[in-house]
Amino acid sequence: MIRVGLDTMGGDFAPEAAVKGAIMALGALGNDSRIVLYGDESAIRAILEKEGCPSDKFDIVPTTEVIEMGDHPVRAFQQKHNSSIAVGFRHLSTGKIDGFASAGSTGAMMVGATQVIKVIERVKRPTIAAQIGDKLLLDVGLNVDCKPDVLEQYALIGSIYAESVLGYTRPQVALLNIGAESSKGNLQTKAAYNLMQRGCDEGRYNFVGNIEASHIFKPHTADVIVCDGFVGNTVLKLTEGFFSLHTETSATNSFWEGLNYENTGGTPILGINAPVIIGHGKSTAKAICNMILTTERTISNSVVEKLKSAFK
Amino acid sequence: MIRVGLDTMGGDFAPEAAVKGAIMALGALGNDSRIVLYGDESAIRAILEKEGCPSDKFDIVPTTEVIEMGDHPVRAFQQKHNSSIAVGFRHLSTGKIDGFASAGSTGAMMVGATQVIKVIERVKRPTIAAQIGDKLLLDVGLNVDCKPDVLEQYALIGSIYAESVLGYTRPQVALLNIGAESSKGNLQTKAAYNLMQRGCDEGRYNFVGNIEASHIFKPHTADVIVCDGFVGNTVLKLTEGFFSLHTETSATNSFWEGLNYENTGGTPILGINAPVIIGHGKSTAKAICNMILTTERTISNSVVEKLKSAFK
Repeated sequence: MIRVGLDTMGGDFAPEAAVKGAIMALGALGNDSRIVLYGDESAIRAILEKEGCPSDKFDIVPTTEVIEMGDHPVRAFQQKHNSSIAVGFRHLSTGKIDGFASAGSTGAMMVGATQVIKVIERVKRPTIAAQIGDKLLLDVGLNVDCKPDVLEQYALIGSIYAESVLGYTRPQVALLNIGAESSKGNLQTKAAYNLMQRGCDEGRYNFVGNIEASHIFKPHTADVIVCDGFVGNTVLKLTEGFFSLHTETSATNSFWEGLNYENTGGTPILGINAPVIIGHGKSTAKAICNMILTTERTISNSVVEKLKSAFK
Repeated sequence: MIRVGLDTMGGDFAPEAAVKGAIMALGALGNDSRIVLYGDESAIRAILEKEGCPSDKFDIVPTTEVIEMGDHPVRAFQQKHNSSIAVGFRHLSTGKIDGFASAGSTGAMMVGATQVIKVIERVKRPTIAAQIGDKLLLDVGLNVDCKPDVLEQYALIGSIYAESVLGYTRPQVALLNIGAESSKGNLQTKAAYNLMQRGCDEGRYNFVGNIEASHIFKPHTADVIVCDGFVGNTVLKLTEGFFSLHTETSATNSFWEGLNYENTGGTPILGINAPVIIGHGKSTAKAICNMILTTERTISNSVVEKLKSAFK
């Protein structure tokens, strides 16, 4: 039995979007999976009733507090002991659930991830990875001053996630750089290139060299793209900007749909000892649904176990 | 009299695209401006004749060598003494022309810019600035490990260029960052923010704070965007990637046309003692035409003189 915990109090449209997203996810989840809802019990039950969904489809863990977006993450996590996020992390750390997802305070989710769940031994820095189109980009904002050896670890972490959850065989891992040649880059990427080349020679992952930003959305260039969090966050936000411009002015198609965050729903925090997925604040029900499915796939494909054994 | 020098041997479609671009620029140039063509004289005259353009519309400086894209920039610049780029830079340094533009080897152009023309006193590092949409982005790849004080100088350099050549009054200068709040960023941008705030308090330019990449293409956000060359190059290339994807799949409009490099044509090297403009290797005649016009505007608006006096 896989138990996916969902914070129903997180996100701009909580709890409605969260509960509706959970209902949407029911049909797509494996038979052996169950969603555990954390939040205001009466609000959750009212939404389920309104949607005509029997409440026994879910486990409900009532919580009485909410960590707001304006709260100081560390302080709120400690003080709001009975908040949906704090309770969810306690349940995750004691094994009552197998993964936890929230579209709420990213700061509070990071506090839970690093202080309650903790970083996997020998992982230097955890990372957040975003799916853009058919590619996995990491880091996208958790570590904005990456040392080259941290980038090198992200090649392995991204490779394992892409293989496990996205279903790529021996994923092609590229380093985001400002030129294709190995000699190109800033001090950070030049050093990272050499480390990744060595990691590839040692058979740890399939490093295919540098990729320029102009090639990110071209097919067959790379499956996993490694970069510093400042650069990855910039790429992600520029893509969001283009996506919203495009959808305002033009018809959509499968390429642009691939950039729609609603379809990927949730960014995994990788390198910690349990599956934790954070969602966009503006998550809709559809985004929440896909975040739940991502969490389930992360659990059922034993991503954390694979990462742990890769860093043994 | 303004004399704009053009390397007709540079670019993938040289010399045809360069000479045709020069012909296109004739009508748009001021009456007091003249284009000086550097390159293979017989090839230039043959194209002019084919296009039905009298050759006395131009000054032609015959050169016998070409710096190829595969050449080593420093070596080629020294050895190919009679190449269009080397002769152009000698003429620029002795005042025979007032600005020089080329879609040829960027490396050779940089050698000429820094070794023949030289950096303006007190400018720590020269920069290349790209126009994307209605905004000026700098640095876009010349300095990929920017110190915060270098970014601070780019705020002033970008502001002067945007005011002089793009016609903005008191341009709004923003720092590209991963959050809007002043506390956001990596070590580099946090430090640069404080320096730019001080530069603004001292009245040197109009700093409006951080801008996130998702807002680059929104109207009324900023006129000048300052960033590290690695980040700026990534933004530029991602934008190019989106632009080509968009034009493959959708109708164009004024926004997307604003991203078309053909319409901006050429990236100025700022911070050196004379106007030098470098073009995209794949420059068409239209791109060359606009590069010539950008060079003329840079000359006629005394950008170099303004930069020199700003750094006095």
